[in-house]
Amino acid sequence: MLSDEDLHHLRRAVELGRRGLGDVSPNPPVGAVLVRNGNVVGEGWHRGAGLAHAEVEALAAAGDAARGATAYVSLEPCNHVGRTGPCTAALAEAGVARVVFGASDPNAEAAGGASALRAMGIEAVDAGLAEARRLIEAFEIALDADRPYLALKMAASVNGAIAARGGERRWLTGEAARALVRGLRIEHDAVMVGAGTVRVDDPQLTVRPPHARRVPYRRVVICERDPIPAASRVLDRADGVETVIVAPRTRAALFRELEGRASIVYAPDRDGQLDLRAALRELKTMGIRSALCEGGPTLAARLLAHGLVDRIHWLVAPAMIAGSAAVPSVAGVEEVDLSGWRFDEVRRVGDDVYLSGRIR
Amino acid sequence: MLSDEDLHHLRRAVELGRRGLGDVSPNPPVGAVLVRNGNVVGEGWHRGAGLAHAEVEALAAAGDAARGATAYVSLEPCNHVGRTGPCTAALAEAGVARVVFGASDPNAEAAGGASALRAMGIEAVDAGLAEARRLIEAFEIALDADRPYLALKMAASVNGAIAARGGERRWLTGEAARALVRGLRIEHDAVMVGAGTVRVDDPQLTVRPPHARRVPYRRVVICERDPIPAASRVLDRADGVETVIVAPRTRAALFRELEGRASIVYAPDRDGQLDLRAALRELKTMGIRSALCEGGPTLAARLLAHGLVDRIHWLVAPAMIAGSAAVPSVAGVEEVDLSGWRFDEVRRVGDDVYLSGRIR
Repeated sequence: MLSDEDLHHLRRAVELGRRGLGDVSPNPPVGAVLVRNGNVVGEGWHRGAGLAHAEVEALAAAGDAARGATAYVSLEPCNHVGRTGPCTAALAEAGVARVVFGASDPNAEAAGGASALRAMGIEAVDAGLAEARRLIEAFEIALDADRPYLALKMAASVNGAIAARGGERRWLTGEAARALVRGLRIEHDAVMVGAGTVRVDDPQLTVRPPHARRVPYRRVVICERDPIPAASRVLDRADGVETVIVAPRTRAALFRELEGRASIVYAPDRDGQLDLRAALRELKTMGIRSALCEGGPTLAARLLAHGLVDRIHWLVAPAMIAGSAAVPSVAGVEEVDLSGWRFDEVRRVGDDVYLSGRIR
Repeated sequence: MLSDEDLHHLRRAVELGRRGLGDVSPNPPVGAVLVRNGNVVGEGWHRGAGLAHAEVEALAAAGDAARGATAYVSLEPCNHVGRTGPCTAALAEAGVARVVFGASDPNAEAAGGASALRAMGIEAVDAGLAEARRLIEAFEIALDADRPYLALKMAASVNGAIAARGGERRWLTGEAARALVRGLRIEHDAVMVGAGTVRVDDPQLTVRPPHARRVPYRRVVICERDPIPAASRVLDRADGVETVIVAPRTRAALFRELEGRASIVYAPDRDGQLDLRAALRELKTMGIRSALCEGGPTLAARLLAHGLVDRIHWLVAPAMIAGSAAVPSVAGVEEVDLSGWRFDEVRRVGDDVYLSGRIR
């Protein structure tokens, strides 16, 4: 059974694991804490593919103090030899007496850690901690899907409008909400918008202030039919961030002008309208395992309508935007079925409110 | 200065005061706690106009134990002889040594309690507690305004739609949210909707399960131009709840049919369109000091656009309603200016999220 102390240390392991977000793709983020006689003797987290696993980092920090300790790991210790040795063996060698992990390993290739530990006489407890599962949500989905894990971020007034058309350009949400969005961008391999948003808002889609990621952060523009203007700021390479444009194959001629300015990926279309599922497949092929879609309303709605969104991050601003100039947050589709959607996170972020939930 | 213990007891006084909501109009809800040597020796709350004030109830409960005690009162003790004697005198007579109150009295006629207590040698502390101010929000606004305190309640999907037009009739929000709305109805002297909502949804607007209020709860239908059907359920008197219809004076002829079915109040109009400000003035004249507007989108938007709403209660359901059939939460006006609006309450209510804030 798990004590409050167990939960405390396991949560700390999850917190440490979060530090690897943005750096560890295509690996899962993992954190580990070693505790002996109630004292934390080692901590670690996975810092990037090819680097030490979290358990190994924590063991190195603990040294001899690991003997007889309990290891708290956000994810079931791996049991395979990848770019590094199996963590189960490392834990056993160091004399760890007990392992408590937050989530079982969804990766068939690496799984079996708990059984391996038990076979070596080490107690292994699967805590089934929601936060630990949440930490590897993107990893787990990208593992099996033929597309990246896709999160949709929207910031809207209580009545669901994202801006006033033709209105003065201003932020709807406050500074704290924008900091949260910056954090979301860092966590995902790419940030994605539709061509309409580029035409209307001309965003840079960079992370400001900049944040170094071991896995380069990419900007993706989904052009469902037509190219974006060559002068768009998202095509500016000054900050060294790559831009990927996904375009309908039968309309390739229209996109020639943008070649050399960005990586153009041509995906199948139907009568000149991009096949979104195929477009996402292309992105995964390029190594993009998670993407944050930040709109606009049409791309968001179409991704939702096609069932291609895994999580929604919704920011509600204490505002109301009325009238014919109000831009709706989702538009252009006749139906979006989110039945079964639940908010699993609700909190105030400055003056705004952040709602988030996994879809299906 | 206030200790944590002071705050604890003062919050308890506010909690007790809340029990009077729905019963005490036109008086403010008030709660009181008497504490001697760390022990609660008496509690009370105001139960209705003409009945004992909270302080007097608490003193009666404490008896001799009130001597030397501290009185925690959600509102500054009154200093005037209304239907009951001044509470300042009662507190002094009982030998109370110290009075801590949550909010100063906004009513000039009853104010001066703190000074009066001090003049009698009793320590009086104005804690300036936000919850205490919130408790008398409706009372305070109705005191000076020539209209009732007006709260707007909306329940919408994250993208701000309240329903799908012509869709199957179903609840967007869950049971806990509906229980919250029931509580809101009980707190206000009246619940109000526009004629369009009656035509489309045909609501009963009753409190289910019923709740006895000392101040009768009324249903108000704002008919900006045209009457509601005579068969509307809101006209059903079976449950003994009065219905008030506010109609444009120059179109009185159209409303003859409804006379006898409800109280019809004719208010000024402009070219047959009801003057909302004047309509609300009429309601106040009838003794309605607080009203909860539950839509529809047009009435809500027009009340907001005219600056007639004091507080918004917004329920967000984990849902998205897209397409041409989506009914927007606010409609029919070109601008709503809510600048300065803040959420002062944010919490999960079942699967939904409740956001609330005062409009200044």
